[in-house]
Amino acid sequence: MGRNRTEADDVFRHSGRRPDVSDPARLGYDWARALLDGFARAGLRRVVASPGSRSTPLTLAALRHPDLDVQMIVDERSAAFFALGLAKAENRPVALIATSGSAIANWAPAVVEADSARVPLLLLSADRPPELHDCGANQTMDQSALFGVHVRAFHALPPPEARIDWLAAFAARVVAASRFPMPGPVHVNVPLREPLTPAGAPPAPEVFAAPLVATGRLAPDPVVVEQVSDLLVGDGVIVCGPENLGGEARAAVIGLARRLGAPVFADVLSGLRFCASDAAILAHPDAVARKNPPFDWALRFGGTPVCRATSDFLRGRRGATQIVVSDCARFADPDRTATHLIQADPALFCAHVRGRPAPPAWAQGLLKCDKAAAGAAEAACADETPFEGALLRRLLSALPEQTPVFLANSLTIRSAEWFSGRASCALKIFGNRGLSGIDGNLSTALGVARALGPAVAVLGDLAFLHDLNALALMRAQELTVLLLDNRGGGIFDHLAQAALPEFERAWITPQAYDPAALAKAFGLRYIAAETTSAAVAAVLANLAGGGAIVHVAIDRAFSLSRCKDFFASCQKESCS
Amino acid sequence: MGRNRTEADDVFRHSGRRPDVSDPARLGYDWARALLDGFARAGLRRVVASPGSRSTPLTLAALRHPDLDVQMIVDERSAAFFALGLAKAENRPVALIATSGSAIANWAPAVVEADSARVPLLLLSADRPPELHDCGANQTMDQSALFGVHVRAFHALPPPEARIDWLAAFAARVVAASRFPMPGPVHVNVPLREPLTPAGAPPAPEVFAAPLVATGRLAPDPVVVEQVSDLLVGDGVIVCGPENLGGEARAAVIGLARRLGAPVFADVLSGLRFCASDAAILAHPDAVARKNPPFDWALRFGGTPVCRATSDFLRGRRGATQIVVSDCARFADPDRTATHLIQADPALFCAHVRGRPAPPAWAQGLLKCDKAAAGAAEAACADETPFEGALLRRLLSALPEQTPVFLANSLTIRSAEWFSGRASCALKIFGNRGLSGIDGNLSTALGVARALGPAVAVLGDLAFLHDLNALALMRAQELTVLLLDNRGGGIFDHLAQAALPEFERAWITPQAYDPAALAKAFGLRYIAAETTSAAVAAVLANLAGGGAIVHVAIDRAFSLSRCKDFFASCQKESCS
Repeated sequence: MGRNRTEADDVFRHSGRRPDVSDPARLGYDWARALLDGFARAGLRRVVASPGSRSTPLTLAALRHPDLDVQMIVDERSAAFFALGLAKAENRPVALIATSGSAIANWAPAVVEADSARVPLLLLSADRPPELHDCGANQTMDQSALFGVHVRAFHALPPPEARIDWLAAFAARVVAASRFPMPGPVHVNVPLREPLTPAGAPPAPEVFAAPLVATGRLAPDPVVVEQVSDLLVGDGVIVCGPENLGGEARAAVIGLARRLGAPVFADVLSGLRFCASDAAILAHPDAVARKNPPFDWALRFGGTPVCRATSDFLRGRRGATQIVVSDCARFADPDRTATHLIQADPALFCAHVRGRPAPPAWAQGLLKCDKAAAGAAEAACADETPFEGALLRRLLSALPEQTPVFLANSLTIRSAEWFSGRASCALKIFGNRGLSGIDGNLSTALGVARALGPAVAVLGDLAFLHDLNALALMRAQELTVLLLDNRGGGIFDHLAQAALPEFERAWITPQAYDPAALAKAFGLRYIAAETTSAAVAAVLANLAGGGAIVHVAIDRAFSLSRCKDFFASCQKESCS
Repeated sequence: MGRNRTEADDVFRHSGRRPDVSDPARLGYDWARALLDGFARAGLRRVVASPGSRSTPLTLAALRHPDLDVQMIVDERSAAFFALGLAKAENRPVALIATSGSAIANWAPAVVEADSARVPLLLLSADRPPELHDCGANQTMDQSALFGVHVRAFHALPPPEARIDWLAAFAARVVAASRFPMPGPVHVNVPLREPLTPAGAPPAPEVFAAPLVATGRLAPDPVVVEQVSDLLVGDGVIVCGPENLGGEARAAVIGLARRLGAPVFADVLSGLRFCASDAAILAHPDAVARKNPPFDWALRFGGTPVCRATSDFLRGRRGATQIVVSDCARFADPDRTATHLIQADPALFCAHVRGRPAPPAWAQGLLKCDKAAAGAAEAACADETPFEGALLRRLLSALPEQTPVFLANSLTIRSAEWFSGRASCALKIFGNRGLSGIDGNLSTALGVARALGPAVAVLGDLAFLHDLNALALMRAQELTVLLLDNRGGGIFDHLAQAALPEFERAWITPQAYDPAALAKAFGLRYIAAETTSAAVAAVLANLAGGGAIVHVAIDRAFSLSRCKDFFASCQKESCS
């Protein structure tokens, strides 16, 4: 510390200010405060912190900042997914704070999801100072570049110094990097020295200037727009994958679809299926895609569709014009069928591009097919024996306007894709489709509920069990869980593994547990629902209060046969 | 796949064998089988796998291998800590298998712990093949070097090819790298192509030769031994930090201590405190260290001591000869007081080094002090109001010979260090002191129980809650949990944060939950114990069956005052 103190003194000789030598913990606290204040002024509003000693200056600075809301969460994995949910719901960066060592490694699952799903997170890891590295000190590991290529940037701060005037501007750039050119996590490693706890409440800090960072939108190249416009001739489709389009982009996509007579294959997570109902948006894109209507061109936005049928449909028309538009470098095209990859803001692209309307018969054929699928879905979901599809279809059509809904991986979100159709009113649908893991789903949903108020999470039993620690947070949040308990990994019933003799043991992996007792353990309401109607009614009845688990037992064989019958029945109707 | 198939055909043209074209999934399965068989022949016996689709060939190959025991665990974080426990208990590598994407990021906390604690793990991550990368394919991320500097090696396998004759030798080297020169995790990324599920049971695979890998032990340089021997003159101490010494090293350390009249400050995790009782081994090294007896030389083995007093004691004698011996490059010396860092096998070093015995008064003084501390500890733990120290002291002295005991972070293991003294019989004590996290402690203990049979885990309520998912595994394992419920992070009562107005909210973080209901949720026995004796009796009564939680509520203020009284009373006795 001696050498560092000398450097600090040099700074003060030059700046004319003097360090407060009465409280040695002030150096770290003032440092953390300048950093957190810089983040707050760059737009940060929420911090999720886990308890720890080394992170004390960061946590205290956050707790005492008037513009920051701090949530304490013991399990750092849960904390990081909670922050992910907050950031998704509010579309702005959220900061994480944790102590040094394995604590921050628990962020990794949410970090890779945030990277893939492009969600801004500020990862503030407390660290031991350099003199405690590589010498066996407790809770000390090499934290530099811990998240490798999965963060937009990594910054190794020096140990706290008296000169803090640059930290506000640094924080502004960190926030900017978490948002542009591709939103995602940024990792700032913050070494801190003992003593870590300031005595009393230090005086109000000096505030240093930081630039406001303004980001533009990627307008499409006019020459490219011209070329592409010439290609949008004949029977076209618009495919919107799992990536929530904002209000302006939604309106622009719908406007373009109307102008060109192009039906929209919109994923449940695209933000289009559960907004204003529009005839151009198919209610059952998966069912229509299974018929493989032969398009001349496809305009594609967002990620790879949740269900394979739409991808297969696009792959079946290899050679046709397929234009993928993305405002960042991540183009979703796993089957390599794209003929054009265009970097542009989707809303601006849709507003500028032209083309020639298809004959009305094209859209009519697909809409007829869509209507037939809707009828088949309604029939499949009519009786009261519960299965995932019926529960999701009925729930999504019954929820109040603007309800946030989190759909867990894996079978839950696919069932929503297959059966839910279009809601009669606008809903805010969320899911974790960056990497489509079953980890952290409940924590993410709790973050969404914290940001947006009364929300619903629909989860299968494995996703629910994978994120059990989230239950410790649930009483304080307005979240109602619909637990689809099909006793194991129901998604695998739909895959080839189902034929293996080891299927039950190694893929279904049924877990023996009592959800009622779990609810009791954390002071949550528990409702067992036997029928589809009862389950939906229970979710609606508990919505306002939250903190409830509505548990529905599902027979896997029944569910599988309903899905197969539905797919078969959709195949009967012709698209032309 | 076309290009790859052509290469495969080339191989077969050369080798004379032909691929089985009737089942395209055979390529991946045979590949995985050759790899797993190679690991098994290099000594692997246990695999912990999490369910997933892309990992199917690896999981199937493990399940069907006659020499491999496979445990399925849904939560990959819990799976990795379980594997860590197995590897620690059996002192041999354990393999992990999980599917691509965020699943493997859940291994990160256990990986960094295994790196720091030097525990061999084989991380077998399934991956999508190269053509599905960087194009928006589902559950696909860059998995290369995911664990950065925290693994001993990272290997990127190519997608499965028909030529598999080299995989056994490859596997032998991977296992070797996980053991020498420094045990730790090795990451092998395994891209696999669809179809993933072989039809039927393929015929027994051809077995390819692989070298046996034999590792030596690091003998000390004789010149250095000579020089060091000359320094071991006068009053000396031997300090054994938290790193389990094997039987030979234990005997060698005890032999050296006797020869030189040097008392041993042995950590609870050194393997020395709970083995054969030997007068040279202090029962209360922490209490003796607080008296700062002025030594002439210290010989140090293992990691940094769990409790700060021993470190402070060493720091107080900066300038005295302090020799740190380690058989790898990780020397524990956070206060930089070592005068010599010697790379050698501790057992060989102790056997070779000489020195001159101290006058008997030296050891007698310290042993007198130790005895006084033992009396004070006994007095502090005499009445029935439970606190961590008394529970640990009485439990460790009552457990049957050879019982495996896992001591969780943070206050639990420190309380054991302060109060437990020496057990009257040999116990196998485990903890996670690589990074000293409160994550994954219960899962690690379950791995230990799986390997060694009826075991006990002692955890505080935060460590317990941090690893709640482990409860799903507990019914199947012979583990009895002693839950020390002090309502939050009791360790912070001992730190400066206790003076902050935000203390309760951001550091103690008390969690409201009902352990009885948690036990019921997972079909575990639950016993609430009101007194120290009742708690210890309940653990002993449930030991054979396992799957039980013995819950003791602890008053934090009472616990803190007992600790303070104990420390004060130890200070009264003089060491000379």
